[in-house]
Amino acid sequence: MIGERELIKIFLEKFKVRGVPLPFGDDVSAWDLGDGRLAVLKIDVLFAGTDMPPGMTVKQAGWKAMVMAVSDFAAKGVRPSAALVGVGLPRRLLGETGRLAEGLRVAAETYGVKIVGGDTNEAGELTVAVALFGTCSRDKIVSRFGAKPGDLLAVSGFFGSTAVAFKILLEGFKASKGLERRVLRKVYQPRARLSHGLILHRLGATASIDSSDGLAWSLHELARASRVGFKVGRLPLSRDARVLAESHGLDPFNLAFYGGEEFELVATFNPESFRRAEPSLKRRFKVIGVATEERKVRFEGENTSRLIEAKGWEHFKMENIGRGVLDSS
Amino acid sequence: MIGERELIKIFLEKFKVRGVPLPFGDDVSAWDLGDGRLAVLKIDVLFAGTDMPPGMTVKQAGWKAMVMAVSDFAAKGVRPSAALVGVGLPRRLLGETGRLAEGLRVAAETYGVKIVGGDTNEAGELTVAVALFGTCSRDKIVSRFGAKPGDLLAVSGFFGSTAVAFKILLEGFKASKGLERRVLRKVYQPRARLSHGLILHRLGATASIDSSDGLAWSLHELARASRVGFKVGRLPLSRDARVLAESHGLDPFNLAFYGGEEFELVATFNPESFRRAEPSLKRRFKVIGVATEERKVRFEGENTSRLIEAKGWEHFKMENIGRGVLDSS
Repeated sequence: MIGERELIKIFLEKFKVRGVPLPFGDDVSAWDLGDGRLAVLKIDVLFAGTDMPPGMTVKQAGWKAMVMAVSDFAAKGVRPSAALVGVGLPRRLLGETGRLAEGLRVAAETYGVKIVGGDTNEAGELTVAVALFGTCSRDKIVSRFGAKPGDLLAVSGFFGSTAVAFKILLEGFKASKGLERRVLRKVYQPRARLSHGLILHRLGATASIDSSDGLAWSLHELARASRVGFKVGRLPLSRDARVLAESHGLDPFNLAFYGGEEFELVATFNPESFRRAEPSLKRRFKVIGVATEERKVRFEGENTSRLIEAKGWEHFKMENIGRGVLDSS
Repeated sequence: MIGERELIKIFLEKFKVRGVPLPFGDDVSAWDLGDGRLAVLKIDVLFAGTDMPPGMTVKQAGWKAMVMAVSDFAAKGVRPSAALVGVGLPRRLLGETGRLAEGLRVAAETYGVKIVGGDTNEAGELTVAVALFGTCSRDKIVSRFGAKPGDLLAVSGFFGSTAVAFKILLEGFKASKGLERRVLRKVYQPRARLSHGLILHRLGATASIDSSDGLAWSLHELARASRVGFKVGRLPLSRDARVLAESHGLDPFNLAFYGGEEFELVATFNPESFRRAEPSLKRRFKVIGVATEERKVRFEGENTSRLIEAKGWEHFKMENIGRGVLDSS
């Protein structure tokens, strides 16, 4: 089977983009406006079958589609200004158009984005394409390729809650009501780390990526783009994931590294700049490791040393489940 | 049933955009960059079920998706610089990814656009979202709302060929091989009128729209946005449409006004500026009428006077046919 990433490779080879400020395949694209300014652009498409987990409402899908795109801007340290939305609605969901628009509107407002254009069509599957636009000065955008050996590796939050939510939703795992509510909220109403992204530059970030394909995948992407490795010394596991791991005998390592659909930022920082930064700013990132010259991505805990595999969250997995649920709604 | 245009109305009401250079619902959106410059943005989504007529290849779908977006830039007189593509492929078409990318690439090259980013997913239906970006000076963009009574009404080409193609494709009409080949090419490999668009400003264009929803609909949209009416004195019917109308007893008026999927430009011009313009430029537009104070859209031929109805090409019509054909491919 051709996976999502093989598809992207085919595109990369076909389009061979040169002479643009960011390489094809970074979280966003950029265009030189002159005078040291960049136009920053992103398109992200939500498909119900792969991006709407069971139980997600149409309004939440609108919200999530906007968050997916904003998160990529966040990872580059760029404030998005304007959005265009291209919507496809199956006939049975035409009556939900207002709720979809409402989800998009609330998310746009939350992140200070103006929806300035859009397009709607009937489609076989609920589809929400969001194109985001913003500008920034050329020296402030944070690529994936600037990490140097010795840079600090840090994250904007903890991981594993969405992996737990999918175990509850898709595999029937049981948990306390409170835990279930918290982890499901992460899936149904994810948040983009825009305010974290907008301080990346001041903290001396050298590279950054959003973690929507999973922490392990993000680390490998950063490592590949920057030609470094990573030594992770601290497992950034959420409290809820830790609780479920203990009660169900799950490997916390897997929950933290191989989940997905978590819109945290994974970034590297120049250690000097990071140390000198305001404590109130740097407190927002948790240092979990360091970039290394040796190009391996590994976890080194107190008594353990494990390779972190280049495994990512492949949306395709959710396909049948998601589509089935939607068809019966 | 809720139509495409009702959906757009719901979006309009929900997003209530103010303080942007172009109103929501114009062919493109614009964002003020300062110093008299605009960023121009467009998203257009091709869905196989509604936008791929029977017999269209995946490569042609890639081409068409790009053309749909470029045509909107053409109608505003703006050169597109960069594109992002968001693709959804059904599993059975994953092997066609390269051909889809090739169609996008060739169209982008044809219109001088760089594809700078993209995103691929598995989806239930072939879906190609294209986001276009360009810049222009604020005084050069041609909106829909600037037409004045007395302005000349002109088009970039002739109409009816795609309507004829759909009669052949969907209703089994017969025509000569040559005619059939020509009109099918218009459907399978439409062209955007970018070079026409880029001279709009020099010709004194006061308003412009692309005709993808049909000539009648375009006239009504221009009339509504500019608060004028139109008197059309000349039927801009293609030779092939005229031939088929005669051989099959079809009404040429219907073929010219109520077709769709023709990416011509429909524009109004200040008569003084147009008269003073270089003959080689103005020859590229055919004057077919005049904007009027009376807010009616009507055709006045030699012996006929008919109202042109606000009927547009509704993609929904093609849905079942298109989807059926693709499913069996």
